[in-house]
Amino acid sequence: MIRNENSSVLLTDLYQLTMLQGYFEHGMEETAVFELFIRKRTKRNFYVAAGLEQAMEFLENLRFTPDELEWLAGLPQFRKDFIDRLADLRFTGDVHAMAEGTLFFPDEPILRVTAPMPQAQLVESRLINLLHFQTVIASKAARMRLAAPDRLLVDFGMRRAHGAEAGLLAARASYLGGFDATSTVLAGKLFGIPLSGTMAHSFVEAHEEEETAFAHFAESLPGGTVLLIDTYDTERAAAKAVALAPRLREKGIEIQGVRLDSGDLAAHARAVRAILDRGGLAGVKIFSSGSLDEHRLKAFADGGVPIDGFGVGTRMDTSSDAPYLDCAYKLEEYADLARRKLSEGKATWPGRKQVYRYEDERGIAEYDVLTVEDDLRDGRPLIRPVMREGRRLHPPDPLTVIRERFERELASLPQPLKSLDETPAYEVRISDQLRKLAREVDERLEAGVS
Amino acid sequence: MIRNENSSVLLTDLYQLTMLQGYFEHGMEETAVFELFIRKRTKRNFYVAAGLEQAMEFLENLRFTPDELEWLAGLPQFRKDFIDRLADLRFTGDVHAMAEGTLFFPDEPILRVTAPMPQAQLVESRLINLLHFQTVIASKAARMRLAAPDRLLVDFGMRRAHGAEAGLLAARASYLGGFDATSTVLAGKLFGIPLSGTMAHSFVEAHEEEETAFAHFAESLPGGTVLLIDTYDTERAAAKAVALAPRLREKGIEIQGVRLDSGDLAAHARAVRAILDRGGLAGVKIFSSGSLDEHRLKAFADGGVPIDGFGVGTRMDTSSDAPYLDCAYKLEEYADLARRKLSEGKATWPGRKQVYRYEDERGIAEYDVLTVEDDLRDGRPLIRPVMREGRRLHPPDPLTVIRERFERELASLPQPLKSLDETPAYEVRISDQLRKLAREVDERLEAGVS
Repeated sequence: MIRNENSSVLLTDLYQLTMLQGYFEHGMEETAVFELFIRKRTKRNFYVAAGLEQAMEFLENLRFTPDELEWLAGLPQFRKDFIDRLADLRFTGDVHAMAEGTLFFPDEPILRVTAPMPQAQLVESRLINLLHFQTVIASKAARMRLAAPDRLLVDFGMRRAHGAEAGLLAARASYLGGFDATSTVLAGKLFGIPLSGTMAHSFVEAHEEEETAFAHFAESLPGGTVLLIDTYDTERAAAKAVALAPRLREKGIEIQGVRLDSGDLAAHARAVRAILDRGGLAGVKIFSSGSLDEHRLKAFADGGVPIDGFGVGTRMDTSSDAPYLDCAYKLEEYADLARRKLSEGKATWPGRKQVYRYEDERGIAEYDVLTVEDDLRDGRPLIRPVMREGRRLHPPDPLTVIRERFERELASLPQPLKSLDETPAYEVRISDQLRKLAREVDERLEAGVS
Repeated sequence: MIRNENSSVLLTDLYQLTMLQGYFEHGMEETAVFELFIRKRTKRNFYVAAGLEQAMEFLENLRFTPDELEWLAGLPQFRKDFIDRLADLRFTGDVHAMAEGTLFFPDEPILRVTAPMPQAQLVESRLINLLHFQTVIASKAARMRLAAPDRLLVDFGMRRAHGAEAGLLAARASYLGGFDATSTVLAGKLFGIPLSGTMAHSFVEAHEEEETAFAHFAESLPGGTVLLIDTYDTERAAAKAVALAPRLREKGIEIQGVRLDSGDLAAHARAVRAILDRGGLAGVKIFSSGSLDEHRLKAFADGGVPIDGFGVGTRMDTSSDAPYLDCAYKLEEYADLARRKLSEGKATWPGRKQVYRYEDERGIAEYDVLTVEDDLRDGRPLIRPVMREGRRLHPPDPLTVIRERFERELASLPQPLKSLDETPAYEVRISDQLRKLAREVDERLEAGVS
């Protein structure tokens, strides 16, 4: 039975535990600094930082349960003294991070962990798991918001999201990335996201007549009647809605909208709009769903198609065109010495870093500077302390505050980067101080490996 | 705080609840039959049924908690009598399904729910969520197994899986789809999957010298030393492993393997194999990871590259080339009448169905027949009863049994379908009885909608 696993410290890779045993055994418990960032960009002009709230919860609650320790003790890899050390392990480190909703670019860290090496190492797998996924989804949602700035956008994706947590966190990440609501009930309960929904084909099919199904649904949900009209024949069903409206009105029930889910959505929307308008239902909204993504939303918006809102499911909740990002959590410093690896094609910038954003007089971003933490500059610093010695420095940002931050950030994005196509990269300048630090690390490493 | 949400009945879409209110209010609680199947095939020649075990757990434990009911009662959509009905709701229906590990094809149901309409409707979202994802992953894993039949395959993907449950269920689904192990510790604990792991770059980088890192790791993990050798210079590091081996042997420690994670893996593997062999380490295995998928595995296998095992992460755990399937859970019958929708491009086969597989004398599958349940045939029936009145009919299959079933099924797959490229579709014959039923439904519907 799967229960409670989302908060388990065993949501980690085996090598984290075997390395921990090595760190403990060889007294390697000095301060380590890891940073989480995206290496190469693919199919996105910008990213939206998301998932920090869940990462903080994970770190604050990190501990091995007696049941977990007993199970680990039965594995051949681990010795008793190591298991005893794990029993006392808590996260006592510091965290610096970009606020959720901030836009960022490759090479820019969105999270820094500063902690005794075993702690900082152990948390890698789940921190990536939490921050990567929500960043994937928020970045995808932002593209849909750009594609259809004035339409209602509702997350419909839970059923084809990758498991329960994916469905829930996709609802959260899409909301902070500009969506208006979700259909996932538990996401409404957990995160306070507005809920939205219509009706399914099965409800219509279970009735012998479509008209009866419409009437039954409207009577049962007087405040939120959105009729699904494509089960058999879309335009005929729209006409049935028109015919039904006066009878419902006598009972004090207004039809709020109709939903299209198949066929040529643009053509159906125009035909249905005309039928509704002629029938005195100009106030009834048209809602659409079915294999939607940002490109189709943009085509509808550009074409002036009379669709007022979209239910976007699978292609957002799986970020189907880019279901993962090239993100990594890398050791930047250990025991006061900056570190990096030289692996071919995977070298990274060492040390504790800060990102400064420079904006023009209209507030539009011009370029960022990636530099070492102690190189203080006059741009807007994006990395801030969020946790000290294992405790948060601030209460969690309400999701609405994060969403407003995202909207400000999106407004500050240079126009070319708002394209759905890949454009020339936003400029991230590497400071001389950071380049110098990288050279120093390499010279030290070259001396060591030769 | 996210806890316990994976078993919540609120893992559903809002419209399921609003429709439930409608069904209750209008006395529509007769028996409904829904089936879950894949509509159109994309990028796969076959699918591997997976996720039934979690679906059964979900149905057996379905109930609203007092906390959930109280929260729902505060929403504007729901009336008190409806909330009271929810308090007593349990799943009391029957389930028929394909056994996990069975290969299947579009239009073939892998699950049938027969239950009072409100129950059968409510569970749709989470049933799809569980069965879709594991089927996505098992089907992807099977391709990797086909690409590299004789190599060790280990799931490394938790960190970039879409959340916690995705990481855990990807470990399960990839194991039943032919993988040998996972690095995800909690998946080992929950599902009994063998665990495997090596070491990370950070462990090497935290040491001033790579040799010291190797020695420390080997001493701390004498039974499972796999050294990561690409942090600085792969071939030099292989030579260091050779130099270290005699000193470790004096302590009774053998190096099991080395891991490559960057650069030209084939070239490095050949060079490292030569270094190890010359150094008397012919028994040391070469393990590789880094942006692997079935196409790269096949190229290595076809090229005779001396890599003994692969750690496959992101591209499997996100099924990156096909992160979702076109699967649906559709009403097939209500109140003893077969049902279907006619939506353009989305019409489905109505009624309670059975799939028969016909195999030749060598046991190789020749074609399937999709027919109505009561059309008994002599082929191998794939759909069997698994739950009656809300209780399972059998204890869960051990995962190893499911994995063996998968291996038998894979062996029975016609050779052309084992290609990684899309081949002509496997033949699924639609029986005359099923075609007749569909015509009858359509005639009834045409009478109704005209």
